[in-house]
Amino acid sequence: MWSLHCSVCTYSQPDGTKLASLCPDCSQPLLVRYAAPVPKSAITGDASLWRYGAALPLLAGERAVTLGEGMTPLIELPHLAAEIGVRRLWVKDEGINPTASFKARGLMMAVTRAKALGLSGVCVPTAGNAGIALAAYAAAAGLPCRIYAPETTPPPILGSIRAFGADLQLLPGHIGDAGKATLTFARESGFFNVATVREPYRVEGMKTMGYEVAEQLGWRLPDAIVYPTGGGEGTIGIWKAIGEMLDWGWLPRETPRPRMIIAQAAGCSPLVRAFRAGEEKATPWEDPTTHASGLRVPGPLGDRLTLRTLRESGGEAEAVSEDAIRSGTFLLASKSGIDAAPEGGAALEAARQLVAAGRLSRDAEVVVFNTGSGASYRW
Amino acid sequence: MWSLHCSVCTYSQPDGTKLASLCPDCSQPLLVRYAAPVPKSAITGDASLWRYGAALPLLAGERAVTLGEGMTPLIELPHLAAEIGVRRLWVKDEGINPTASFKARGLMMAVTRAKALGLSGVCVPTAGNAGIALAAYAAAAGLPCRIYAPETTPPPILGSIRAFGADLQLLPGHIGDAGKATLTFARESGFFNVATVREPYRVEGMKTMGYEVAEQLGWRLPDAIVYPTGGGEGTIGIWKAIGEMLDWGWLPRETPRPRMIIAQAAGCSPLVRAFRAGEEKATPWEDPTTHASGLRVPGPLGDRLTLRTLRESGGEAEAVSEDAIRSGTFLLASKSGIDAAPEGGAALEAARQLVAAGRLSRDAEVVVFNTGSGASYRW
Repeated sequence: MWSLHCSVCTYSQPDGTKLASLCPDCSQPLLVRYAAPVPKSAITGDASLWRYGAALPLLAGERAVTLGEGMTPLIELPHLAAEIGVRRLWVKDEGINPTASFKARGLMMAVTRAKALGLSGVCVPTAGNAGIALAAYAAAAGLPCRIYAPETTPPPILGSIRAFGADLQLLPGHIGDAGKATLTFARESGFFNVATVREPYRVEGMKTMGYEVAEQLGWRLPDAIVYPTGGGEGTIGIWKAIGEMLDWGWLPRETPRPRMIIAQAAGCSPLVRAFRAGEEKATPWEDPTTHASGLRVPGPLGDRLTLRTLRESGGEAEAVSEDAIRSGTFLLASKSGIDAAPEGGAALEAARQLVAAGRLSRDAEVVVFNTGSGASYRW
Repeated sequence: MWSLHCSVCTYSQPDGTKLASLCPDCSQPLLVRYAAPVPKSAITGDASLWRYGAALPLLAGERAVTLGEGMTPLIELPHLAAEIGVRRLWVKDEGINPTASFKARGLMMAVTRAKALGLSGVCVPTAGNAGIALAAYAAAAGLPCRIYAPETTPPPILGSIRAFGADLQLLPGHIGDAGKATLTFARESGFFNVATVREPYRVEGMKTMGYEVAEQLGWRLPDAIVYPTGGGEGTIGIWKAIGEMLDWGWLPRETPRPRMIIAQAAGCSPLVRAFRAGEEKATPWEDPTTHASGLRVPGPLGDRLTLRTLRESGGEAEAVSEDAIRSGTFLLASKSGIDAAPEGGAALEAARQLVAAGRLSRDAEVVVFNTGSGASYRW
């Protein structure tokens, strides 16, 4: 059993099974809390994130809407470790997911809850990959689905959304503008708005990335995790998982937590700016511009939670130029065989820049996330 | 330990560790044979095809060149079973592989052998997905790589090949023309030509699809397997795996083998034509045309082995029109959330046509393969 708790104020909703969105008291994100520790022995042999199903918000008798998401490869790259100047480097390749990005994990969970609760439809604003994921899982669930996306979203991503039969609405502007349209539509239609951290379920799917890193490293943690960050749910989810694994005894209690490091595009880096300025929340970025469309999120709702994660973990935040994103993406793909997305290239370059600046130790063992597939950016 | 045996004549090469291509006596494909049964207990807990590593041609001390391929989702689709008229239907989603297709399995194995044997480079002709896979695994191995592709290959596929830093050569014509250019280049350069069934390793990677279907169904077999077929290596590999599982006791010896069914495009169906005419080999198709680029293989070298598989299994061969491929692809994606490639759409429609024609039982349990990702066809 689980309950819901505000990430900022003291609000809680004891019956986790009722539909939830933002905190009714302070409008900040809610998070799921489990009543009892989930034992490590509850992990199953599944070759998907459902091996951690006991730690996900699903009730007895409910069926997951699954496409086999998760348990993505974690690949060690000694040559690239030498190239960027750290002791060991792994890339977690989230492109090897249904819908070709990490978004599958979270949208699976949101659609599973929507289906279990008998909702009439789902909707989301997207910078790209979340739209593909919602469209796919809504198709799997047989739920009507509407997606709002900037008209500048890469055409292959728009094509994927349409391929799943979703109702795709293109808008001028950025994901923030799409978010406003989604809010209005959700209010009028009764569709469930599953925008990043506007509901507490996506983060639960996302956290499985943290479980997987620990298990794939042989139940230990790296020194640093570098995550390319738009809305923030990946970072928030992984940090939540680390806390749970320590609380629940999946890892020894004295295990040092990794430094959580976010990479953003120089053309849209509200979280880097806020982190460096010591702010608790981010001011929306003016005129966001980057070809890494997943990073084009000027005013993320998960700003407080992400910034808190960086501070609690002794982490870092680094912005990467468009040229460096391009060169990092090609470096990663051509030296590893991983089909790097621009977001993955940004994360690799952020690690390199931080090492060069002396803000990430050359002795560190580092996990870098490639959050999607490069194929989504080729046309 | 393993040895190599001609699939047609009596030639064998006792030392499987030496590089091999076609049979030196009759120019037909060689296949790998293992000296002793591989016990089911040798299967490990890996979330990749390396759980079956004991049944793959890798010697002690050799390292696989791996990107985490295999163990792709097998998804049951009751609504689509009803729609096409069979008792139960599963789709094996090979798009959830590194390089976004089933080709990852085979090219991983070929590149692993090439690297272990210290070869100077690798080359291949491709209708699309094999080129992405070779480029990626060559990058992972640090091996030079040349790819010959028809200039009509979908642009996203060409972009992926280039993203991995491969030397991409575009040619007029079809994969047969690319094959001739590859032969010449391999002779001049000493690069290893890993064209479909021209060497015996790719099929070994491919066969793991058969192991996975059996294990994911709870160690049993379906009544029929429908595979969209260009070069034939998927069908050949799965059939080999079924024989091995029965020989080695992974499945009870009396287990009925599934009917192997191939789907081809009506605009390029040399194997369907040969099967219906009762031929042992196929005559090259004139003017091959289909948007399902993986099926645009007019003169497959694996023709004898594929036709033999169909006959031994009491199988079928069915051609699907361009319109039916398009509608099948949309049906599959929009009703399942699987990002169907045109080849997957062709396989689904082939199953429907065979049921309607009374050549596939309405009582059958059927596994249909979606061999790649629809994303590779969007631009």
